Amino acid sequence: MKPTHIEHIGIAVENLEDAIKFYENVFGLECYKIEEVADQKVKTAFFMVGQTKIELLESTSPDGPIARSIEKKGPGIHHIAFAVNGLQKSLDHAAEKGVQLIDKQPRKGAEGLNIAFLHPKSTYGVLTELCEHPKD
Amino acid sequence: MKPTHIEHIGIAVENLEDAIKFYENVFGLECYKIEEVADQKVKTAFFMVGQTKIELLESTSPDGPIARSIEKKGPGIHHIAFAVNGLQKSLDHAAEKGVQLIDKQPRKGAEGLNIAFLHPKSTYGVLTELCEHPKD
Repeated sequence: MKPTHIEHIGIAVENLEDAIKFYENVFGLECYKIEEVADQKVKTAFFMVGQTKIELLESTSPDGPIARSIEKKGPGIHHIAFAVNGLQKSLDHAAEKGVQLIDKQPRKGAEGLNIAFLHPKSTYGVLTELCEHPKD
Repeated sequence: MKPTHIEHIGIAVENLEDAIKFYENVFGLECYKIEEVADQKVKTAFFMVGQTKIELLESTSPDGPIARSIEKKGPGIHHIAFAVNGLQKSLDHAAEKGVQLIDKQPRKGAEGLNIAFLHPKSTYGVLTELCEHPKD
């Protein structure tokens, strides 16, 4: 595995609308898309910064992973996602190196990407996502 | 202000050597530099992923900001840094928009960059750094 770039940085927010305004007004970034990912119980807003997306995440349910994360740690940076070529192969490689996988096989994430998470317990506290475009 | 790219992602670690091995062995990334920033009481290790650096941060003192962050929140993602053109102007703009600045003027950071931090209380919980190359 060798990531090509940081695909996105996921940021947990309590109120998506307020946070969008902040990123627009303070950083001059443009929110190009809002998408609900029912599976993850989140509503997401996307901004492009060079090669990398800022993905704001608001929970759509009090028992969703983002709501639980905010309850435990407060709002803020939630995860980072590396773009890789060959997601399944990358997951297998990580597992071989002793990394605990949250997703043993890729699943669908926001923006049509194939995604999988590595457990922060085995990645030095960083909730890490690997992702690739389906066409790759 | 309009950031050009994510300059780096700062990650707080307890043991730099172990974490470097992890990023090398699992992600296949190369640590191209280790640098001590005495001012910040940290030792840092750098990896390039596309346009963005992963900056691992180990505290060199129990009272340093990274040690305090780990004590409070555990190891993990510590801050994100946006590259901007015109750092002082960007800081003034953020202040005008009501953002609390940790650094009102740029100071020297790792890799010779001019840097300044925004307070996470006014950036939705995200410790945010702005930085630029001195030549810009």
